[in-house]
Amino acid sequence: MTESNPATHRLILMPSGRQGQVPHGTDLLAAARSLGVELESICGGRQTCGKCQVAVEEGAFAKHAITSSADHLSAVGPVEADYCEANNIVGRRLACAAQVVGDLLIVVPEESQARKQFIAKAAGERAIDVQPAVRPYYLEIPAPTLETRLGAWERLQHSLAEDWKLSVDSFAPTLLAELPPALSGGRGKLTVHVWQDRQVLRAQAGYHEAAYGLAIDIGSTTVVAHLCDLRTGALCSTQVSMNPQVRYGEDLMSRVSYAMREAQGTERMHRAIVRTLNELAEQACAAAGIAVEDVLDVVIVGNPIMHHLALGIDPSDLGGAPFALTVSGPVDGRAADIGLRLHPAARLHLLPCIAGHVGADHVAVLLAEAPHESDEVSLVVDVGTNAEISVGNRQRIVCASSPTGPAFEGAQITHGQRAAPGAVERVRIHPATLEPRWKVIGCADWLSGEGGGLPAAQATGICGSGIIEAVAELRMAGLLRPDGLFDDARLTPRLRRRGRTFEYVLVGAAASATGSDIVITQSDVRAIQLAKAALYAGASLLLRRLGIDHVDRVLLAGAFGSYLSPLHAMALGLIPDCDLSRVTAVGNAAGDGARIALLNRQARLEATRLAGWVEHVQIATDPAFQDTFVAALALPHASDPFPHLEGLLPEPAQAPTASGVRRRQARSPRRS
Amino acid sequence: MTESNPATHRLILMPSGRQGQVPHGTDLLAAARSLGVELESICGGRQTCGKCQVAVEEGAFAKHAITSSADHLSAVGPVEADYCEANNIVGRRLACAAQVVGDLLIVVPEESQARKQFIAKAAGERAIDVQPAVRPYYLEIPAPTLETRLGAWERLQHSLAEDWKLSVDSFAPTLLAELPPALSGGRGKLTVHVWQDRQVLRAQAGYHEAAYGLAIDIGSTTVVAHLCDLRTGALCSTQVSMNPQVRYGEDLMSRVSYAMREAQGTERMHRAIVRTLNELAEQACAAAGIAVEDVLDVVIVGNPIMHHLALGIDPSDLGGAPFALTVSGPVDGRAADIGLRLHPAARLHLLPCIAGHVGADHVAVLLAEAPHESDEVSLVVDVGTNAEISVGNRQRIVCASSPTGPAFEGAQITHGQRAAPGAVERVRIHPATLEPRWKVIGCADWLSGEGGGLPAAQATGICGSGIIEAVAELRMAGLLRPDGLFDDARLTPRLRRRGRTFEYVLVGAAASATGSDIVITQSDVRAIQLAKAALYAGASLLLRRLGIDHVDRVLLAGAFGSYLSPLHAMALGLIPDCDLSRVTAVGNAAGDGARIALLNRQARLEATRLAGWVEHVQIATDPAFQDTFVAALALPHASDPFPHLEGLLPEPAQAPTASGVRRRQARSPRRS
Repeated sequence: MTESNPATHRLILMPSGRQGQVPHGTDLLAAARSLGVELESICGGRQTCGKCQVAVEEGAFAKHAITSSADHLSAVGPVEADYCEANNIVGRRLACAAQVVGDLLIVVPEESQARKQFIAKAAGERAIDVQPAVRPYYLEIPAPTLETRLGAWERLQHSLAEDWKLSVDSFAPTLLAELPPALSGGRGKLTVHVWQDRQVLRAQAGYHEAAYGLAIDIGSTTVVAHLCDLRTGALCSTQVSMNPQVRYGEDLMSRVSYAMREAQGTERMHRAIVRTLNELAEQACAAAGIAVEDVLDVVIVGNPIMHHLALGIDPSDLGGAPFALTVSGPVDGRAADIGLRLHPAARLHLLPCIAGHVGADHVAVLLAEAPHESDEVSLVVDVGTNAEISVGNRQRIVCASSPTGPAFEGAQITHGQRAAPGAVERVRIHPATLEPRWKVIGCADWLSGEGGGLPAAQATGICGSGIIEAVAELRMAGLLRPDGLFDDARLTPRLRRRGRTFEYVLVGAAASATGSDIVITQSDVRAIQLAKAALYAGASLLLRRLGIDHVDRVLLAGAFGSYLSPLHAMALGLIPDCDLSRVTAVGNAAGDGARIALLNRQARLEATRLAGWVEHVQIATDPAFQDTFVAALALPHASDPFPHLEGLLPEPAQAPTASGVRRRQARSPRRS
Repeated sequence: MTESNPATHRLILMPSGRQGQVPHGTDLLAAARSLGVELESICGGRQTCGKCQVAVEEGAFAKHAITSSADHLSAVGPVEADYCEANNIVGRRLACAAQVVGDLLIVVPEESQARKQFIAKAAGERAIDVQPAVRPYYLEIPAPTLETRLGAWERLQHSLAEDWKLSVDSFAPTLLAELPPALSGGRGKLTVHVWQDRQVLRAQAGYHEAAYGLAIDIGSTTVVAHLCDLRTGALCSTQVSMNPQVRYGEDLMSRVSYAMREAQGTERMHRAIVRTLNELAEQACAAAGIAVEDVLDVVIVGNPIMHHLALGIDPSDLGGAPFALTVSGPVDGRAADIGLRLHPAARLHLLPCIAGHVGADHVAVLLAEAPHESDEVSLVVDVGTNAEISVGNRQRIVCASSPTGPAFEGAQITHGQRAAPGAVERVRIHPATLEPRWKVIGCADWLSGEGGGLPAAQATGICGSGIIEAVAELRMAGLLRPDGLFDDARLTPRLRRRGRTFEYVLVGAAASATGSDIVITQSDVRAIQLAKAALYAGASLLLRRLGIDHVDRVLLAGAFGSYLSPLHAMALGLIPDCDLSRVTAVGNAAGDGARIALLNRQARLEATRLAGWVEHVQIATDPAFQDTFVAALALPHASDPFPHLEGLLPEPAQAPTASGVRRRQARSPRRS
């Protein structure tokens, strides 16, 4: 039936559809590779790992049909038969064991494709090409004889070069002690884990494929650790903890002050975060049921101060102009060098920082959101004590840090508090009755009036998202004028005089855990105005730098973005006008970026390229900043520049004025 | 007066005599370099380090005379003037500060030459080219501005590339924490120490040149540490200690057994030696008055088992055939990785091993004695529990390990003991009276009869060199026959019957600390015969392998060689016949080789080349070994093959027979 030349055969590989002629007798593993399809293989063709399974399909070629695969592949040998029986494999062949002896159409199942894509469940179903920096290689090293002068390490090097074409040139210091038992325990059969194709980290007797990695995002408040399977890319466990450095300073600048003030300050904060990272690693491994010693790689991201403290570097230089980084490029080292207790040879990688205020966490956000791969102009915002802002597309991206201060995190707010059970996190104000509804963390229901009565429903204060929504709702209900002053023309018992200004009673004493009213004061509104003006002005300046006046989409990263509704963000004037459907909360994008860098070594190079390519703008020294900032203090009204708020806001009662807030701004410390 | 072209000038550099034309205005540092003369310079031409001082001579050139140097060099500027005044420098110029503006003859003093030679005082006045792996570089890094995005590390990299043409690509993990204080403390002026031109180890504010290194020879019994100045090559302090592993096993094989028997055995022995190395480092630094933190490099040599235990590697594979090394090549790492407490970034280098029985210590001996650089054929012997033997010249070197056993170290000898106060270390027996004289360690005098009476003169036993000299003297006095049996025809009260054999009373009870006679028994003689036969047979087989029957010189390395007289070594038949004046004790050549590798980075490459180039012979499996060994059991008589012993030995009374020792040999464990 077949028309093929007996010296070569036609091979079609699905689902890629790649096809071509391969020499008679080529094994399928090599044949697939020659057609550009990499199959998974750890054992190097020894029919041991079972990773290269393929299904042989009977199908029709363009010109002729294959009637039976039996004639087109070599027969199943005893090793393959044993393996398939032991592992209950039916209807598949091991590509390394099967030679092409006729025309063939084979299907490479997803799990046999070397370039796996792991789809993250959370945050936008991100697809990650799994190409980790640490990979296992299985070897069989011949036993030494009396004539053997080379050491086991040198023989291992030769095997890696011969079987895997790897030129490893170094080893982790623990490797030499691991080698003799690995070799004797497996009678020469062993698995080594190699970092970046050049450093051997670990040797184990026999065949092993387990290797895990940690992707860590160190935020000033929260630390997130993702434990990932380095082979499949699967997310095994995510653990979250408070940043223990909070005890040395609530915000970044107080931690820098602590480092400057106390001789041991840096060391203490370094040890504290490392202790937490070790706890998170243990918890994640326990949750996933794996040994901490199987963790072989770690990627850490964080803002420059978190990044430097993780490395034990005094962050004092980041506390004042010129905000100089001690290291800006990517850092590679051993996890044990900073005190992490994983496998002693586990590697450590920190993504690069862009500038003194724009750190590895922002690089990770860019890596995850990839605005540089799109024609659309994105505005990417990650809000913490500072807001890191990037604007641009594949042509050009400019970024900056804007000193929003801690108001968005509930600090410097009369009844502000951190996001914790009892905190008001959502707010709605009825435009007609002017009565509020709210949600507190820890209680699923919307509350109103005297609250739900349950202890869990009693409010203790307002967290960042709560105060932002409240101010936005007050504005949308017409209780706040565009200049941010309470409009006492709106009659409601909720709005009451306090000294020379007003305050809005969000939660009455009956519904609060404190027994007092929880209110939003004029000064709270001003604090939010200052913060949002800094953010908006930063974004505006970046847009101006690019010579554009609008963006195609807005990505809100971090916890801030997750809890904030796009509508309220725009109603408050946090972000420039944009189609509301194109404003997206992207979750912990920094953690996602860390995960990408953990699972894909190319992404680390990409991050380094990005960090250098992105243009950094010092907005604090931009002569236009002050004017832009002052102009941004006003709350939006339904006209330019916010056409997408049409119908959501009251008509302007009077022109915005910023005199009140301008006075306050002069007194307000901007980075504390 | 001058005839030179104003665009170039003639420069002569003494003492090298190099000369040539250099462009007008070239600074002397660059001008000398262009003529192939490297001047010392740490500060990179900033007139800070004063290393590049030269003397300007008034002299006559071939065609014209220089009458005054003042016209031929640029004037002294204020920075140079300040430096010279502050450092009391008269009559010299800083080469980096002086431009050539006329013909010149300058003298480069020894201390300004970049390639210093350090002459070791001990052991053969060895000259070492000082080119250490760790070198200081002085930098002035511009202060960052608001526009600076690069971190301090990246700016340091740029400075090293620009000022020193170095491409450093990595840093010690402690460097990042050192950088901010080094930069701020020196206002951008700092000194970094760089390893192998590629890794930055240390950063210090201002100008520093101090850096030290340790060269360590770990013997089974004794550990020697040399503290060296990495800049000058000077030996600052030598410290010696017992190897603490002795408590886990007197000889190598018992330590291997301990490692095989006890789960924690390797770890315990590893920790013990590291503890001792730390003590030696502290003692050496204290003696030299330097800080342990200024030690930045360490070179370790030792036999394969000591080498592996120093790295924490289980040596079990070295305890039986095929005697497989875990690592044979050179090992580079951090000193802290094995637990050394020096500067935390200090480097560690172990020389390569040649084979399972021929270790880094023998490579170090070869490096120090350099038989491969000579036309003469050398026999290099380093005796311990095994004897490492190399024979050859620049054409070819063969080496082997011969199982001499511990008799040469005083073990398995009736009154044998380690070399310690009270041990008989030298012996003379009067050829006519047959009465002995002896020396004990701790007493300067030769003793005889009832000894000196002083407690220090009382003998406690016989150490290795004592038993060897005693057996050689017994032979030369005719008390031993060539077959090694006592000759009871020689009448002396010193020789008395013991069971079916005889014994010689070396020290009577009155002169001994034990209150008993210290004797040499027939079985002691046999033990020495077995050991010397192994050594001699090993050397003979290597000579045969090279197709030669004599060597031009014999080098006896190690403590064994130092305490042994060449005459006695040859009279005993330890070594092949050779002109006695060409038999040399070369002291701790392994320690010297370690020192060379510490001070000269090229020597490390040379050691690696040597370890691979030297041919290793497995003499235990050589079919000729047994016969050669048995033939070598006899003690020499004055004829072939020992013409150089003519007149020193009694005429043969009877043909040598080896039947008695052959029996014993069958029982004797050869490697225990």
